[in-house]
Amino acid sequence: MTIDLPKDWADRLGGGLADFYRDLHAHPELSFQEHRTAEKVWEALAPLGLEVTPGVGGTGVVAVLRNGPGPVVWLRADFDALPVQEQTGLPYASTARATNPDGKDVPVMHACGHDMHTTVLVGTLQLLTETKKHWSGTVVAVFQPAEEIGGGAAAMIADGILDRFPSPDVVLGQHVGPIPAGVIVYKSGVVMAAADSLKLQLFGHGGHGSQPESTVDPVVMAANVVQRLQTIVSREVSPFDPAVVTVGYLHAGTKDNIIPDDAELGINVRTFDETVRSKTLASITRIAQAEATASGAHKEPALTTTHSFPATVVDDTVMQQLAAVFRGHFGAEHVIENPQPVAASEDVSLFGTTAGVPTAFWFWGGYPQETYDESARTGRPVPTNHSPLFAPVLEPTLSTGVEALTIAALSRLNTKR
Amino acid sequence: MTIDLPKDWADRLGGGLADFYRDLHAHPELSFQEHRTAEKVWEALAPLGLEVTPGVGGTGVVAVLRNGPGPVVWLRADFDALPVQEQTGLPYASTARATNPDGKDVPVMHACGHDMHTTVLVGTLQLLTETKKHWSGTVVAVFQPAEEIGGGAAAMIADGILDRFPSPDVVLGQHVGPIPAGVIVYKSGVVMAAADSLKLQLFGHGGHGSQPESTVDPVVMAANVVQRLQTIVSREVSPFDPAVVTVGYLHAGTKDNIIPDDAELGINVRTFDETVRSKTLASITRIAQAEATASGAHKEPALTTTHSFPATVVDDTVMQQLAAVFRGHFGAEHVIENPQPVAASEDVSLFGTTAGVPTAFWFWGGYPQETYDESARTGRPVPTNHSPLFAPVLEPTLSTGVEALTIAALSRLNTKR
Amino acid sequence: MTIDLPKDWADRLGGGLADFYRDLHAHPELSFQEHRTAEKVWEALAPLGLEVTPGVGGTGVVAVLRNGPGPVVWLRADFDALPVQEQTGLPYASTARATNPDGKDVPVMHACGHDMHTTVLVGTLQLLTETKKHWSGTVVAVFQPAEEIGGGAAAMIADGILDRFPSPDVVLGQHVGPIPAGVIVYKSGVVMAAADSLKLQLFGHGGHGSQPESTVDPVVMAANVVQRLQTIVSREVSPFDPAVVTVGYLHAGTKDNIIPDDAELGINVRTFDETVRSKTLASITRIAQAEATASGAHKEPALTTTHSFPATVVDDTVMQQLAAVFRGHFGAEHVIENPQPVAASEDVSLFGTTAGVPTAFWFWGGYPQETYDESARTGRPVPTNHSPLFAPVLEPTLSTGVEALTIAALSRLNTKR
Amino acid sequence: MTIDLPKDWADRLGGGLADFYRDLHAHPELSFQEHRTAEKVWEALAPLGLEVTPGVGGTGVVAVLRNGPGPVVWLRADFDALPVQEQTGLPYASTARATNPDGKDVPVMHACGHDMHTTVLVGTLQLLTETKKHWSGTVVAVFQPAEEIGGGAAAMIADGILDRFPSPDVVLGQHVGPIPAGVIVYKSGVVMAAADSLKLQLFGHGGHGSQPESTVDPVVMAANVVQRLQTIVSREVSPFDPAVVTVGYLHAGTKDNIIPDDAELGINVRTFDETVRSKTLASITRIAQAEATASGAHKEPALTTTHSFPATVVDDTVMQQLAAVFRGHFGAEHVIENPQPVAASEDVSLFGTTAGVPTAFWFWGGYPQETYDESARTGRPVPTNHSPLFAPVLEPTLSTGVEALTIAALSRLNTKR
Repeated sequence: MTIDLPKDWADRLGGGLADFYRDLHAHPELSFQEHRTAEKVWEALAPLGLEVTPGVGGTGVVAVLRNGPGPVVWLRADFDALPVQEQTGLPYASTARATNPDGKDVPVMHACGHDMHTTVLVGTLQLLTETKKHWSGTVVAVFQPAEEIGGGAAAMIADGILDRFPSPDVVLGQHVGPIPAGVIVYKSGVVMAAADSLKLQLFGHGGHGSQPESTVDPVVMAANVVQRLQTIVSREVSPFDPAVVTVGYLHAGTKDNIIPDDAELGINVRTFDETVRSKTLASITRIAQAEATASGAHKEPALTTTHSFPATVVDDTVMQQLAAVFRGHFGAEHVIENPQPVAASEDVSLFGTTAGVPTAFWFWGGYPQETYDESARTGRPVPTNHSPLFAPVLEPTLSTGVEALTIAALSRLNTKR
Repeated sequence: MTIDLPKDWADRLGGGLADFYRDLHAHPELSFQEHRTAEKVWEALAPLGLEVTPGVGGTGVVAVLRNGPGPVVWLRADFDALPVQEQTGLPYASTARATNPDGKDVPVMHACGHDMHTTVLVGTLQLLTETKKHWSGTVVAVFQPAEEIGGGAAAMIADGILDRFPSPDVVLGQHVGPIPAGVIVYKSGVVMAAADSLKLQLFGHGGHGSQPESTVDPVVMAANVVQRLQTIVSREVSPFDPAVVTVGYLHAGTKDNIIPDDAELGINVRTFDETVRSKTLASITRIAQAEATASGAHKEPALTTTHSFPATVVDDTVMQQLAAVFRGHFGAEHVIENPQPVAASEDVSLFGTTAGVPTAFWFWGGYPQETYDESARTGRPVPTNHSPLFAPVLEPTLSTGVEALTIAALSRLNTKR
Repeated sequence: MTIDLPKDWADRLGGGLADFYRDLHAHPELSFQEHRTAEKVWEALAPLGLEVTPGVGGTGVVAVLRNGPGPVVWLRADFDALPVQEQTGLPYASTARATNPDGKDVPVMHACGHDMHTTVLVGTLQLLTETKKHWSGTVVAVFQPAEEIGGGAAAMIADGILDRFPSPDVVLGQHVGPIPAGVIVYKSGVVMAAADSLKLQLFGHGGHGSQPESTVDPVVMAANVVQRLQTIVSREVSPFDPAVVTVGYLHAGTKDNIIPDDAELGINVRTFDETVRSKTLASITRIAQAEATASGAHKEPALTTTHSFPATVVDDTVMQQLAAVFRGHFGAEHVIENPQPVAASEDVSLFGTTAGVPTAFWFWGGYPQETYDESARTGRPVPTNHSPLFAPVLEPTLSTGVEALTIAALSRLNTKR
Repeated sequence: MTIDLPKDWADRLGGGLADFYRDLHAHPELSFQEHRTAEKVWEALAPLGLEVTPGVGGTGVVAVLRNGPGPVVWLRADFDALPVQEQTGLPYASTARATNPDGKDVPVMHACGHDMHTTVLVGTLQLLTETKKHWSGTVVAVFQPAEEIGGGAAAMIADGILDRFPSPDVVLGQHVGPIPAGVIVYKSGVVMAAADSLKLQLFGHGGHGSQPESTVDPVVMAANVVQRLQTIVSREVSPFDPAVVTVGYLHAGTKDNIIPDDAELGINVRTFDETVRSKTLASITRIAQAEATASGAHKEPALTTTHSFPATVVDDTVMQQLAAVFRGHFGAEHVIENPQPVAASEDVSLFGTTAGVPTAFWFWGGYPQETYDESARTGRPVPTNHSPLFAPVLEPTLSTGVEALTIAALSRLNTKR
């Protein structure tokens, strides 16, 4: 199958998309707070004549492009940002702040590229609308909120997305990452990790900083927990079972001379196998309790799961076909099969799993050669997703993303001659 | 010398003082933010006809009671509160919040009893005013801001307190603590520790929580620093040299799945000897740097001193005389000499040291027998100063404090018959 | 190719082999001290009419079975034991002790099954001798010393094994392990890890146990090193790069009340990729130095490599052919391809690498169903190689091993009809 | 009271004593193995005509010098050595080795100066014999074995020393230490710590070094215990309660690539107060158990007390009188009262406590000015008792020790004119 996109699409549409992207980047919003973003999506899609439904699963937006009989292809983009203080120095860098669910004022940044995903999906809808005479079927664009905290897909499903809109035959999605610009990376089977987010509260007994003997010091307790958690990966899990246990935040105390009552840790667990996952979670519980006992705590720690992502599983048949399409379009040297999964997590596969249809999901690159050259020169690693320095280059990232998603969609729709 | 206080003073004045205390307790203010407290002091002193000067050293208040020729006795009370979330369950418990110097919204509580100190000094001025015919000399009441962060006394001195008001012959102060109510505890020589408050910033390199290998994890770095700091007291300082190294706060990160760039620790050091102090501070520097190196950090940690208290030194001659006066008034069994210093710190001795005159400073008790009984029953220690549960019983704490300070002042003034 | 072994071989030869095995098991010898073992091998091979050369590479033995023109197949078995105190409770359990290279008296045990490897190679030579009329070519049996400490293969090569004996066309070897008895497990490519053995000496400054302040405590230093080493695998290496850092021994001090001068750690590193290997070794150096600095040590640690194994690489073509032969002989359900390498290490591949010929190496099982049942019942894991409880069941382990090695050899020799 | 010693005693006796000392130093013996030492003592005392009884409490020696009516004064010297590898470089340095109670071959050194104590007691008996016409009473010289492991005094008492020999009116002893030569340091009350020696066995589950996931790593468990133990002194004991928790030895494993089953730690605890002592011991138990749980151990740790010393309590009246005698003899500037106890421990006070009579015990110096100069120059601390570098200078250490003990004894005996 040959898919020909209009040669000049990028010249005609790209400028507007670039502005749209820079605007989103400058105005990031936290999960489930994407009101402005949803409105901007609505504004961008309005001229295209699609059926656009806002407020799906909170702040989500669904746009339906009906074009005769044929398969129903869902294209999904997530659009929330992160509580990160941007340090890219870009002219359109974010200075936004927001109130997080704990009531704290935090900085906000599109540090995971969801602004790019959203822009690309808008561009894809433009391109599919333009080329309607060449295909038939239905495209459903899913602008999903709250991917970062793992509740967005579930919220849209709970809000009836599968009943209220044409049911999918396939779900397609993609993610931008620290890959050379112009390159597509894919894998089938388990492509992303299961992720569990845990909140661990350690209970000590506070007092004056000068009288530790009348306290149970939660800072020392927390330090021991952090160190002990390292041994799960280093000693308890087989070196052949990939697993990550990260303490992403640790908060205790307000003043240097007051020993606080409590400490709170945010623990993130990535695994690719259910046995490893449950063993790791059990070890975290065991360690937290034992370290509290070692500290002489009067109260057991409280460990709660705040989010939980399933492993992302990509359909082998669909993905191999898409890879062939990508190779035809971008050249074989720009389409690489990943030998191993990625440790990050996604909730995209919830749509396909719930609907009982295949999902395909791939990665595309946003980093120019200069970024790699600079890294080699300075020895500082290339900024990964979630870094305050994460900054994909606008082009060719944008056009690669739009073309990849468009030809992927077209390859799953009916062709008209 | 015999000092007779009016027998009925507590009945006449105590009710008002109790209300004054409860009001202060319910409205605590952070260091250098004590505007309402200063106003309340001003209101309480207004009827007494004293010379009251607000705004000394920021929010401090100085009241002068002139009563003919004789010695000048300074009575000092501190009046700031702490960023602690009160958990006493008292009817007049604080629900106050304030913005701390870092711009964060924090709870505020009188968790160190400065509300009691302030109330007692107001009561003492009332009693000294009432009994003016029995003594001569000058009393200067110093309501000091910002004792908790160690800058209040210095600010009042920098603001000219020693020049603008009658210069002291002696400085007297007292502190309420977890001592049986009705009891006075004293010591001469070094009575309280030197205290250094340090801010330690550890610099890692952030990234996605699933890719620790591309980061330098500041949470793990911080945990190692906390554990290593324990070895200063356990291994590097002689068991006969009292020393405390407390990490009172530790903050890193915002989300469980983002490895942050930095961690910040608040370290409090208590020592009683200059050699031990400098050795301990040097060890903290050495440990922080070495642990950053062990983590492969690209940047050295930043260690800054935020506050520094001198050791509190009490004049032996004055204190022994006051102890005799206390024994005469309260009974010998209620006046106890402490064999060892207290690990907490104070800036009260800056006034005397700067003026070149002796300081006397003692502790009095605020805990009823029931508190000790409950502690014995539950095995939970009696709440110390700075605990969210710190709650001295109103009486006899208030009257003991007023009587102790009043007779101490009278014993240093001239007696008139 | 069909290979028919005499049906009754096990009945005729097995009893003698079992006695031979039990004798070796009861008399284990440390690396390069295998004098008795070499003599026993010599005695066992004497009746077969082979050319037997002892003392190759120290205690190694080489036996050549010439049988006309054809390929030269090397069969290799290692025959040294470990400093482990046997706890199997077997009637023929070892009570042997020996002096290790540090001059210490240690227990000795065949805890890695090399006694089984040696017995199987003796049995294979018996069987190949018996069946000489069916094949032609040359078999060279290599009884290698000192596999455990990684110097045995190198010593035999240095001693001219490749020049003094018929040069190999292929090198074959196998290893017994905690696999169900009767089962063969194989993989091509990297099958076993690169292994580096490091000795880390930490230098403190000793003194009386009651005066830590006048010492630099090497026990505390060592504890911090051990904990920090955990973070290499947990934080510095990608979850997709298998790596192990084990501190197998830690020795410091002689009496509880004397703080010693030094501590010594034995560190074992397993990696499957040269980049990961060099990064891990660099991190160990960095951590050891930084933790010594954190302890205030006057002297840098000394880190020396005591042994170093290359990764074991198996030829894909040869191994796939052997797997087909094994499936034909044992049944497909008993021949399993391992999806991942084994973290243990071997020096067998040095022979093939040096000679420039392919190596094949596989694992076979020694554990009966009861062992797995007991493990399931008690929750205690099945004892692995190097455990004091490691005890393969005699049969069918012995006959499976002999048959596997014999048919593997025959499949690489010429067939005569 | 004036005590005149023969002016020339040192010239006449000192040479022989120096030889005696060098011989003892070159031939140290472990606790309860002091057979040669006891024989040398017997040989040295034989010419003096005393009643010498060997074999008291194992290897102890008791010598009685009867000289008419009067008080009975016990003079006690301990004579065992330590498992330390001498590094002094002295011409008479020890190269001795011995088998310790665990059956291990260890180096032996007089690293605590007991050779000096023994020599001084021999010299004192010579001097007291020479001066018999000036005093009356009875002197009992107690050459005690096994002070280092804390069982020697108890063994002599169990062997009937208090019944078989004249019962004491007072017990006198002294200890050489890192004090300027010629100086006496004393204190009454608690002068030395209570000491508890604990053996902690941690039980993991061993296996191959490449498969940590199938083991419970006792080395990691031990490292966590060592670090956690630091927090007892740093966090659980008041800074005003001197306490020391030392892990003097830690042993686990034999090879870097075998994860061992167990680890053993030798823990030494020094305290000066029974409440602190029991709290500390309870915390050690709690920490060991909790860290085993944190490691997922299948078996609880075993914690056993191997030795236990009481606090050493010196009688105030006797010690003050002796201090006056020392000041008269050595000059006031050479007799210093120690403001605080010493963290080391002794079993000397068992004799007095059991007999119900006062004990006096003091320290005297063995280090010349050069040692202090070198320490100042190099920054390396002066070697303390138990260091491999501990080396008191022969003179004036020897004569100061003999004169101090002799005049102390004479001051408690009757004077004859």
